[in-house]
Amino acid sequence: MRAVQVVGYHRNLELTELPVPTVVEPHDVIVRIGGAGVCRTDLHILEGQWEQKSGVTLPYTIGHENAGWVTAVGSAVTNVAEGDKVIVHPLITCGLCRACRSGDDVHCTRSQFPGIDTNGGYAEYLRTSARSVVKLDDSLEPADVAALADAGLTAYHAAAKAARRLGPRDTCVVIGAGGLGHIGIQVLKASTAARIVVLDRNPDAVALAAEIGADEGIVADGGQVERVLELTRGEGAEVVVDFVGEGGSTAEGLRMLTQAGDYHVVGYGENLDVPTIDLVSSEITVVGNLVGSYNDLCDLMELAARGLVTLHTSTYPLEKFQDAIDDLDAGRVRGRAILVP
Amino acid sequence: MRAVQVVGYHRNLELTELPVPTVVEPHDVIVRIGGAGVCRTDLHILEGQWEQKSGVTLPYTIGHENAGWVTAVGSAVTNVAEGDKVIVHPLITCGLCRACRSGDDVHCTRSQFPGIDTNGGYAEYLRTSARSVVKLDDSLEPADVAALADAGLTAYHAAAKAARRLGPRDTCVVIGAGGLGHIGIQVLKASTAARIVVLDRNPDAVALAAEIGADEGIVADGGQVERVLELTRGEGAEVVVDFVGEGGSTAEGLRMLTQAGDYHVVGYGENLDVPTIDLVSSEITVVGNLVGSYNDLCDLMELAARGLVTLHTSTYPLEKFQDAIDDLDAGRVRGRAILVP
Amino acid sequence: MRAVQVVGYHRNLELTELPVPTVVEPHDVIVRIGGAGVCRTDLHILEGQWEQKSGVTLPYTIGHENAGWVTAVGSAVTNVAEGDKVIVHPLITCGLCRACRSGDDVHCTRSQFPGIDTNGGYAEYLRTSARSVVKLDDSLEPADVAALADAGLTAYHAAAKAARRLGPRDTCVVIGAGGLGHIGIQVLKASTAARIVVLDRNPDAVALAAEIGADEGIVADGGQVERVLELTRGEGAEVVVDFVGEGGSTAEGLRMLTQAGDYHVVGYGENLDVPTIDLVSSEITVVGNLVGSYNDLCDLMELAARGLVTLHTSTYPLEKFQDAIDDLDAGRVRGRAILVP
Amino acid sequence: MRAVQVVGYHRNLELTELPVPTVVEPHDVIVRIGGAGVCRTDLHILEGQWEQKSGVTLPYTIGHENAGWVTAVGSAVTNVAEGDKVIVHPLITCGLCRACRSGDDVHCTRSQFPGIDTNGGYAEYLRTSARSVVKLDDSLEPADVAALADAGLTAYHAAAKAARRLGPRDTCVVIGAGGLGHIGIQVLKASTAARIVVLDRNPDAVALAAEIGADEGIVADGGQVERVLELTRGEGAEVVVDFVGEGGSTAEGLRMLTQAGDYHVVGYGENLDVPTIDLVSSEITVVGNLVGSYNDLCDLMELAARGLVTLHTSTYPLEKFQDAIDDLDAGRVRGRAILVP
Repeated sequence: MRAVQVVGYHRNLELTELPVPTVVEPHDVIVRIGGAGVCRTDLHILEGQWEQKSGVTLPYTIGHENAGWVTAVGSAVTNVAEGDKVIVHPLITCGLCRACRSGDDVHCTRSQFPGIDTNGGYAEYLRTSARSVVKLDDSLEPADVAALADAGLTAYHAAAKAARRLGPRDTCVVIGAGGLGHIGIQVLKASTAARIVVLDRNPDAVALAAEIGADEGIVADGGQVERVLELTRGEGAEVVVDFVGEGGSTAEGLRMLTQAGDYHVVGYGENLDVPTIDLVSSEITVVGNLVGSYNDLCDLMELAARGLVTLHTSTYPLEKFQDAIDDLDAGRVRGRAILVP
Repeated sequence: MRAVQVVGYHRNLELTELPVPTVVEPHDVIVRIGGAGVCRTDLHILEGQWEQKSGVTLPYTIGHENAGWVTAVGSAVTNVAEGDKVIVHPLITCGLCRACRSGDDVHCTRSQFPGIDTNGGYAEYLRTSARSVVKLDDSLEPADVAALADAGLTAYHAAAKAARRLGPRDTCVVIGAGGLGHIGIQVLKASTAARIVVLDRNPDAVALAAEIGADEGIVADGGQVERVLELTRGEGAEVVVDFVGEGGSTAEGLRMLTQAGDYHVVGYGENLDVPTIDLVSSEITVVGNLVGSYNDLCDLMELAARGLVTLHTSTYPLEKFQDAIDDLDAGRVRGRAILVP
Repeated sequence: MRAVQVVGYHRNLELTELPVPTVVEPHDVIVRIGGAGVCRTDLHILEGQWEQKSGVTLPYTIGHENAGWVTAVGSAVTNVAEGDKVIVHPLITCGLCRACRSGDDVHCTRSQFPGIDTNGGYAEYLRTSARSVVKLDDSLEPADVAALADAGLTAYHAAAKAARRLGPRDTCVVIGAGGLGHIGIQVLKASTAARIVVLDRNPDAVALAAEIGADEGIVADGGQVERVLELTRGEGAEVVVDFVGEGGSTAEGLRMLTQAGDYHVVGYGENLDVPTIDLVSSEITVVGNLVGSYNDLCDLMELAARGLVTLHTSTYPLEKFQDAIDDLDAGRVRGRAILVP
Repeated sequence: MRAVQVVGYHRNLELTELPVPTVVEPHDVIVRIGGAGVCRTDLHILEGQWEQKSGVTLPYTIGHENAGWVTAVGSAVTNVAEGDKVIVHPLITCGLCRACRSGDDVHCTRSQFPGIDTNGGYAEYLRTSARSVVKLDDSLEPADVAALADAGLTAYHAAAKAARRLGPRDTCVVIGAGGLGHIGIQVLKASTAARIVVLDRNPDAVALAAEIGADEGIVADGGQVERVLELTRGEGAEVVVDFVGEGGSTAEGLRMLTQAGDYHVVGYGENLDVPTIDLVSSEITVVGNLVGSYNDLCDLMELAARGLVTLHTSTYPLEKFQDAIDDLDAGRVRGRAILVP
C-alpha cells in the first residue's frame, strides 16, 4: 500500500510502498483510510518538536486524525465488523489501568499514539484497536469527519466539561473562533442554555461564530475584557474557555471571570502567571483540558450525525500530501485539509 | 461596654467604653461575646494592609472570629432566641443576591465584614445578623470554638471541597500543618477514606498531624516532592491542598500531582506561574478557596460537637488584648489566642 | 381594590372589594397584578380538596400564578424597586432554615403559599416577599408569563433536573405533552443534546411537540412502550419524565427505561407499585419532582426572555373569573387562562 | 482438580474431578482458589430459582465469591502476573460496550457470571479475565476476603453511592445489620461524617453495629420509625439504605425520610408500593442498587487493606462443602462460610 512517512526531521515527508498491516493481537482492527486530517501538529513533528517526546524510530507513517472502513478484526473484537464505517480515536489504550477502567482512557498509563509514536493514517490502511474505533452513522462519510478525531475531539471535551456547570443565566466566553473554537461553539450551543460570547481577532471568524450559535461576537481589538464585563453587568462570565492560550489570553481570560468562575485552558503557549491571592479572593478555578475520551468521541459523532456539529474541509488525494502540508503552512486551507487515499 | 478599637494605623489598639449595640433591623442579632479569636489578619490591619481595601472609618472595633450568647433579636429572626449559644459567621450577607440564593453566601454582592469594615468582636457585645449566627451544641463553649469562625472555617471549606472527589484509593497531600492545616486534616479524616499525607517544615507539626489523622507525615526538608511520588508509585497525588501558598509551595504542589489531579490553593503569597502546556498535558485543575459559607460553618460545628475537630486555645482577658497581640506577633501562642471579655 | 375570593367550598368564587395590601414587614413587596393564571388546582380548592391540608380561614383571595408591577417595598428590600415588572414565585419562604440557606427554598420549613393558605393574586394587588419576586426582562409582559409561575416552574424544575445526566447519545422520553409537558420539552431542548421522544394520547399534542423541539413523537395508543424500545435498539431510554402519573403511566414509564436509568415522576394520581427486585436488578432510580425553586424561576424567565420557552394564553378580565373557571373545567381553554385586572 | 458441581436442581452438590482450566483467550487469567464464599444465592441455585434466568447447562461448578493466586495469564494481560494474590470480581465483562467504557461495567451488555452461568470457584482453579482480578495487598489473605467479592461488594456499592450526598449534619439510616449491612456500616463510617443510625430486629446485630461505627443503634421492635423521627427533630433522615427490602421495610424506610431524601434499596423481596403524590410532595428519590463495579472492588480492597472493613469468616475444607451449605441453611454460620481447597 501507499503510505506517507517521516524519513527525517527538517526534511519533507516521502511517499513509499509498505505491506498492508494485518491483525496481530485479538483486539486489532484494520481500517482502510477514507480520510486523514492534516494537522498543525504534523508540521511540528517535521520540525523535530516531538522527536524527544515520542521517541519514535524513523521512518514511520504520520497522521493521527483518521476515519475509514474496517477491513479486518481480531478474534476478541465485538464492537465493529468488516465493512463498518468508523472514526478512529487518536489513542490506543490498554483497557486495564485505573484510568481506562474509569472511562478516562485519555490518561491510560500504557497508551500508544498512531501518527506520533507508531504508524498513523497518511496511508491506505491503518492498524488500530477495537478500543479506538467508533462506528459512524450512515449519514456520515469518513473524509468529512476525520478531522474531528483529534482537533474536534479536544474542542468537544473542553466544551462539554465547561457546560456541566452552565445554566440559562450564565455566560460562557469562548476565546478563539478558529478550528477548535468553531467546534466548541457548536457543542456549547447544543449542550447548554447559557449565553455564548465569542472573541476573536478576526472579524470573519466572529461573523461565522454568530452563524453557528454565538449569542454575542466580539472582535478582540483591545477592549474585549471591558466588553465582556459590560455584557455581564460588570460581574464577568461564569465560564471562559480559552482556545488560544497565548498572546496574553490567559490574563485576559481571568479578568473576564466572575467570582467563583471557571477558566478552561485548551490552547497553550504562554505561562499562566497569577497571584495566589487573586485565585483565593475570587475563588476561581483553572481547568486544564486535553483531548477527549472515547466516550467523548462517541458523543461528538452523535452530534455530527444530527447535523449539530459541522466542519468545513478541503480534500487532497493522498499523493498530493505535500500540497496539503504547504497550504496549511501558508494559511491557505479553509477549514481542515484532508488526505484521501 | 468595653471594646478594643483601631484608632490609627501603625498604632496600638485601644480599650474604650462604647454603648451596647441594639437591634435596629429586623434581622439583627446582638451577641454577648464569649470569645474573640486573635488572628494574624488583625496584625495586618494594624499595619495598614486593609486600609484601602476595607475603606473603614476609624475608630472601629476589631475582631472577626466571634462566639457568645444571644441577648436580643430583631422581629424577623426565627432561627435563634435570647440565651442561645452561637458562633458568628464572619460575613453579614444580604440573602437576596444570586449567590445568597444559591447557598454560596460568601460571594454575596452586598456583604459586610465585622471586625474589618464595621464593628467586630473584641468587645463585650457584637451586632450581627440572623443570617450569620449558628447555634452551638450544649457541649461546646464559645471561647473554645471562636477561632473556628474564620481560620477554621476556611480550612473546613477547602478540605470539604477537596474531599468530594476523593475515594479510598486516592491520596490527598496537605501542605502545611499549622493553624489551618491542623483543622483541614481533621476534616479530611472525618469526611473521606482517602490516604492523607501531610507536609510541614516543622517536625513537631508533622508529629501532631499524625496524632490527629494523617496517614503519613513528611518533614519538608527539600525531598518532599520525591517522597510524595514514592508514596504514590511515581504517579503523584490525586489532590493537593496547599495551606501555605508561598516559599515555592505552589510549584512543588503541582509537581506532586497525578494526571487530572486537583491542586487546591488556600494559603497565599507567591504567584502561581505555570506553562499552559503543563496544565493542558497533565489536565490538572487549580482550585482557589476562600472562607466557608454559612452551611460550611454549620457543618464544622457539627464536627466540633462530636469531637471530630478540636483546636488548642490560649485565653486572655479582654483587657489583656495587647499581650495577645504581642504573643501572636512573637510566635508565642500555642494554638489560637482568644480574648474573653 | 377588587379581589376574587373563596367564600365556601362547593360554592362559586365571589368578587369583592378589599383594602389594598400594604407593606408590614421589611421584606414585604406589594405587586399590582398584571396577570393571574387560572390553574386546575383552583378547581380542586373549590371542591374542598385542600380544606384540611391548607387550613386556610375563609374567605380568602385565591390565585397562585402571579405577575405584575412592584408598587411598594419594605425597608430591607434590595432586589426590586417600585415600578419593576416581576413574576412571583408561588412560595413565601423564610430564608433562614437549612433548606433556604442551601438554595432549596421549596423545602423551607416555614413557607406560606399565597392563593392556597393566604391571600393570592386574583386581585388588583398582592402582598408577597422580596424572596419571591423575580424581575422580568423588558421583553416580557406579566400577563404572558404569569402561568409560568407554578405550572411552568414545575415543568422547568423536572426537566432541568433530568437534563443533568443527559448527553448526546441519551434518549429522554417525555410522557404527556399537555401544559407541563409542553414547557418541559422546550426546557429539555434548550438544555441538553439528548434525543427527546414525546408520548401523548392526543395526536395534536404530539404534532405540537414536534414543532417545539421533540425529535420523535409517539401517539400513545397502546404500543408506546414497544415503540420506545425500538427507537433505543431494544435497550430503553436513559431518562423518562412522566408528566402524567396516572392511567398506567408509571408502569409503562419503568418499562421504557434502560439499565441504570432515571424515571422522573411529576404528574401524580396512581400508585407506583414495583417489585424491589426490579429496582435492584435494573438499578434504576425513581425521582420525585415538586415545584421549582426561586433559582429555577430565574432560569426559566431567562429562557422566556430569549424566546426559548413560550406559552399560549387566553386572557379574561378579572371580573370574568367565572367564565375562565367554567372554560377550564369544560376543557375549552387553549393554553392557559389568565385573569387580567 | 477437585470441583463441586451442580448436577441437578433439588439435589445435593457433588464433588468431582475436572481438568485444570487453561488460558484460551488473551485476557484469560487462571486463579488457584484460596477461598470461595458460600452464599445464600448458592442455596437458591439448588432450589432452581436461577434455572430459567441463567440458562446454564448442567453440570457446572458453583461459587461466585472467589479469591486466590494467579497461576497463568493470557498474552494481553498487563495488570496481574503469575503468583499475584487476587480477589475476583463476580462478572466477566466485555470492555467494549458503552457501560464498560464508562466504568460502569456491572451493566455490561455481554457479561458472564462464573458460578451462575459458567464454571465458578468451588474448585481448585478458576478461569476468569484480566478485567475481573484485583491484586490484593500483602496484608490480605484470599480466604479472609473472598466473601467481599459479591456480598461485600454490593454493600460497598450502595454505601459509597449513598455517601456522596451525605455531610456532617445528615443522618443515614441503615436498615439491617446482617452480612451486607455489617459491611455497609463500616464503609459509611470510613467515607462520610454523617451520623449513622442502624436498625435491626436482632439486639446482638445492633450491639455489633455500635462496635463497628454506628452512632445510634435501634432494635426494630415496632417503634423504629418514631425513634428515627425523634433522633432527627421530627424531620427524618436524609438517606436510608435498606439492606432488607421485605417484611415492610420499604414503607418504613420511606416514612423515616426527610423532604428531598434518598431511599436506597439493596435487599429485595416485597413490592415498593407508594402513591405518586407522596413521591412528588416530599420530592424523594428511590435508588436501586446492584453489585459494585470493578472500581468499587478496588476501593473496597483498599479499605480492607487498611483494616477499615473487616469480616468474620468460618472456613471449611473444600470437601466439607455440604457441611457449609447445611450450616448456612440452618443459620449456624457466624459471619460468612468460606471453602478452602
